[in-house]
Amino acid sequence: MEAVKYNPIGIIHSPFKTADETPLQTRVSNGARGEIELFPEYTHGLEDLYKFSHITLIYHFHLAEHPGLLVKPGHSDSYHGVFATRSPGRPNSIGISVVRLEEICGNILYIENIDIIDGTPLLDIKPFIPILDRQYATTLGWLADEFDGS
Amino acid sequence: MEAVKYNPIGIIHSPFKTADETPLQTRVSNGARGEIELFPEYTHGLEDLYKFSHITLIYHFHLAEHPGLLVKPGHSDSYHGVFATRSPGRPNSIGISVVRLEEICGNILYIENIDIIDGTPLLDIKPFIPILDRQYATTLGWLADEFDGS
Repeated sequence: MEAVKYNPIGIIHSPFKTADETPLQTRVSNGARGEIELFPEYTHGLEDLYKFSHITLIYHFHLAEHPGLLVKPGHSDSYHGVFATRSPGRPNSIGISVVRLEEICGNILYIENIDIIDGTPLLDIKPFIPILDRQYATTLGWLADEFDGS
Repeated sequence: MEAVKYNPIGIIHSPFKTADETPLQTRVSNGARGEIELFPEYTHGLEDLYKFSHITLIYHFHLAEHPGLLVKPGHSDSYHGVFATRSPGRPNSIGISVVRLEEICGNILYIENIDIIDGTPLLDIKPFIPILDRQYATTLGWLADEFDGS
């Protein structure tokens, strides 16, 4: 099957300069702020986005190494299949984060609750729509002790 | 900035053979079932995934054309910036869907609530974790009349 090629549409600027200091999730980012620098040729695509309070970012984990199909996340004592984890190192190192959108000025988006390392290439922005993006009656597998399924 | 290249990890098989019959969202798919055929070399990466009730699929809208930065989604009367919509035709045509995971047999995943066209190349699978993937106090911009923000 043919490979898929994407051209980054922008860069994510963040206070986190190394993997060690980058929060594992948006919910433990303590409201950290960052900016998205959308490449100017895409600015028209932002029309109407300012009316949404939250956006989903899709980006490339550009520093991640792919360690194999079984991985031991930092917060776990054991190995799990990579597709049962959110580890950055994956066959295709695609990341998704839901962040709060504070303001858009031209091609710059100011965002809050960032859990992304500085300099990350951005691939897509989508409006966050809870009814599409969340599901109820969820079971959480090996993460059940750590997170609430509701 | 350098282009990013991903190799599909599998194919999504679905009852929907054309764009017209494919539901716009998982919530209006009426429980439609499909299968993911993961390429066998990735099967070990599924370990522990069966314990999750819902998974996030990241895939390539392989049939989508990119119509420009302003788009008129099927359910809207007016044009919006492409990043304020979930239209398949986007600068990087990446799709995300949260589906229910019914069963895994070897390299085949049986899924429910599919809103994806048959033959779609799969790029990644992540466990769905509500506390990471949803946000409260959401405002929904031009979609506020259509959806509830809660």
